Amino acid sequence: MAEESGVRGCMVIKPWGYGIWERIQKLMDAEIKLAGVENCYFPLFIPLSFFEKEADHVDGFAKEMAVVTHHRLIADGNGKLVVDPSAKLEEPLVVRPTSETVIGAAMSRWVQSWRDLPLMVNQWANVVRWEMRTRMFLRTSEFLWQEGHTAHADKADAMSETLRALEMYRAFAEGPLAMPVVAGEKPENERFPGADATYSIEAMMQDGKALQAGTSHYLGTTFAEAAGIKYQDKDGNHALAHTTSWGVSTRLIGGVIMTHGDDDGLRCPPQIAPQQIVIIPMLRDDDGDAAVLDYCRTLAGELRGLSAFGEPVRVLLDTKATKAQTKRWSWVKKGAPIIVEIGPRDVADGKAAVIRRDKLYQDSGKLATAFTLRAEFVGGAAALLEDIQVGLYTEAKLRLDANIARDVTDLAAHFKGDDAKFVGWVEVQWARPTGAALEKIVEQLKALKLTMRNAPLDAVAADGVCFFTGEKAVERALVGRTY
Amino acid sequence: MAEESGVRGCMVIKPWGYGIWERIQKLMDAEIKLAGVENCYFPLFIPLSFFEKEADHVDGFAKEMAVVTHHRLIADGNGKLVVDPSAKLEEPLVVRPTSETVIGAAMSRWVQSWRDLPLMVNQWANVVRWEMRTRMFLRTSEFLWQEGHTAHADKADAMSETLRALEMYRAFAEGPLAMPVVAGEKPENERFPGADATYSIEAMMQDGKALQAGTSHYLGTTFAEAAGIKYQDKDGNHALAHTTSWGVSTRLIGGVIMTHGDDDGLRCPPQIAPQQIVIIPMLRDDDGDAAVLDYCRTLAGELRGLSAFGEPVRVLLDTKATKAQTKRWSWVKKGAPIIVEIGPRDVADGKAAVIRRDKLYQDSGKLATAFTLRAEFVGGAAALLEDIQVGLYTEAKLRLDANIARDVTDLAAHFKGDDAKFVGWVEVQWARPTGAALEKIVEQLKALKLTMRNAPLDAVAADGVCFFTGEKAVERALVGRTY
Repeated sequence: MAEESGVRGCMVIKPWGYGIWERIQKLMDAEIKLAGVENCYFPLFIPLSFFEKEADHVDGFAKEMAVVTHHRLIADGNGKLVVDPSAKLEEPLVVRPTSETVIGAAMSRWVQSWRDLPLMVNQWANVVRWEMRTRMFLRTSEFLWQEGHTAHADKADAMSETLRALEMYRAFAEGPLAMPVVAGEKPENERFPGADATYSIEAMMQDGKALQAGTSHYLGTTFAEAAGIKYQDKDGNHALAHTTSWGVSTRLIGGVIMTHGDDDGLRCPPQIAPQQIVIIPMLRDDDGDAAVLDYCRTLAGELRGLSAFGEPVRVLLDTKATKAQTKRWSWVKKGAPIIVEIGPRDVADGKAAVIRRDKLYQDSGKLATAFTLRAEFVGGAAALLEDIQVGLYTEAKLRLDANIARDVTDLAAHFKGDDAKFVGWVEVQWARPTGAALEKIVEQLKALKLTMRNAPLDAVAADGVCFFTGEKAVERALVGRTY
Repeated sequence: MAEESGVRGCMVIKPWGYGIWERIQKLMDAEIKLAGVENCYFPLFIPLSFFEKEADHVDGFAKEMAVVTHHRLIADGNGKLVVDPSAKLEEPLVVRPTSETVIGAAMSRWVQSWRDLPLMVNQWANVVRWEMRTRMFLRTSEFLWQEGHTAHADKADAMSETLRALEMYRAFAEGPLAMPVVAGEKPENERFPGADATYSIEAMMQDGKALQAGTSHYLGTTFAEAAGIKYQDKDGNHALAHTTSWGVSTRLIGGVIMTHGDDDGLRCPPQIAPQQIVIIPMLRDDDGDAAVLDYCRTLAGELRGLSAFGEPVRVLLDTKATKAQTKRWSWVKKGAPIIVEIGPRDVADGKAAVIRRDKLYQDSGKLATAFTLRAEFVGGAAALLEDIQVGLYTEAKLRLDANIARDVTDLAAHFKGDDAKFVGWVEVQWARPTGAALEKIVEQLKALKLTMRNAPLDAVAADGVCFFTGEKAVERALVGRTY
């Protein structure tokens, strides 16, 4: 899927991993376009001064950043290259950690009148956040993401877009990724710096930890004020726009791995699998090979004629010159949803040896290969893919639902033991304190290596007292360990 | 299409410009995948030492590069941000000007046996080359591109891939981009540093200058040796792989603009137009508006049901709250191939007011709007789009063919006058000298602001003497001004 690149904190995303990202991009991009958001591209480099404009927000993310200070390398005369001291930039350039500031500056040029609103743009790009501890797909210095940025005439319209993006992420996670999530609002201390409200989708990994898998922010007029995004309304008055931003990243791939992985590797949800059915010919370097390959090609053609999830089924006939056994386990590890092995015997019998990646073994521990008549397999293949997708979701959903405790009175006791212990999350009722009162709770949780995840939007109304302060509770919120 | 970003040499690509790039990506990516090349992603940053390994090639491109030297900004106590001197990187990181070196390093890990060959990967990414003089889409410090990198067992296989990529580019330029090109081999002095052979497609802009629109390189074993890409062959012997690389960039968009632009803006070839037909309702803020919008929606639905170039027709119903007149000229400027205006009268008559972007005016100078029965317009819309595509290509192809002079004996006389004068290219026969002899010719051409473009692959055999040396000629080559 990915490997270390030799560059600190940066990964090489290999074909299967990148193929999953391409699937995510394709499906998500269609949703983004459907919502009327237009894709643009903004520069990789942001002048340092842009971050000063946002001085209020700098604390949040603008500290650890890759800074370009020079524009030339020269030979040092000893066969080495060195930075040319005479090629120092007048103003250092920051490699974008997010494009908030440059997009804000563009919006201030593009928005003049109420007729220009809503202005909704999105960018698919790489961003860099200098991370001290990195972890493949979850926290890397460079990662790929999409960032949506929208400007609206008023709060109602901006808030509606914020929640539309959140719902898009929820449906995407639970649909194509088969990854159940809880959508909700983050507590004040976890807001994007400068945001009026931050919402997230939180997924439960197989170790019980939470993964923040996507965020959507209502930014009020703070960013519009900093960037000068103003418009003339129908009455000729000038007003600040209300803005939003929302994003998901290659971190989603990390979420998929930790949601659907098993001892044998990944079980890739069919909707985002670069290949849904892999056909492996069992060749013997003899005269029978031609017939096996012919049979495989015919089978591949039949399968490609099918449609699953509203798209043509993606089929790979793996003719690489490696042993069939090696191929099988490589595809099991990558998580191809269905693996079909075809040998001379299958050709003779008109059958296919079908392996479901989600149900790899019999109870006995033997591989659960189903020898199926070809026509029968082809006839049921699309339904099988859909069944695997639903099965993966259901398994993860049961785990999520079963591991949110609602009756915990002592967090320290509940979460005691080492980090590796599976504990899950705790739902508490709370008074939603702010400022110093919240800070005290955050410290208290931090001592237990816990954080507030979010206040689920679909939780039942609070009816008790605040877990932390004893005041009347106003909502329910989730507490857990996180990545 | 694009605008200055406030960051030196970096542009903001606006929705219509980025939409064209998305179309280019979609169509080209399908061709790349069809050839069995797999997409990956490699890191943005490359350690300085990687470029030292390529010491021989450094002269070519590795001098002007953006260098990251620090990883933190701090407040200076006066409300400003400064680079934190204590956060200096041990080894400076270069923002990739190309990923040749990191991909070579990955290939050296991935290739072990002949079974691993050919290894063919591609990356869609942003790259940075610090440019002193920049020009929108043609030469920007940051640009978007794809870079294909392949490793093969022998020269024949690698050369065949080099030429496959070149032919893919030629067909792509002349097909979707409607931009005629000449595919050929670059002279030795214009080769990618370290390459054994460099091929290009060259397009003629409307000012007669050449635009190198895509390149494909056969790299021999030079890069494999530098990166250590070795494999064990069937007999157990170790051998170096033969590698290739090939790329096109957002520069293609610049080529399209300068090939198909006219006084009113761009004429976007339908195959790469983000929207092929734009419907503009002529609204009057009265009771009649609903009927106009209804009619437009029905028309849009009918058009979307059509197929052109093997894809559903892309239709936009522009309901933005701006004046119809303003919208019309904005779409003319962007180059939407067909613009349809619908007013109450058209609704009453069951007609559509159709504007072809490629034939905007009557001879009288008036707008050539065709009032067409709706059913007739819908019935012919796909053919109309295809006609526009062919027309744009034909116009540019006639210009290219008419402006390659083959009987020039005095380059100085032929190219005299200022830069702005339309001159076109000159085809000469030459002996294909190398080394110092070639250098002399290059200097001679440079004095006239000329360069050798390429030796066309489909040129007729040489039958005369070298234009420069008087020796027996071995091939024909193109000379011209360039971007």
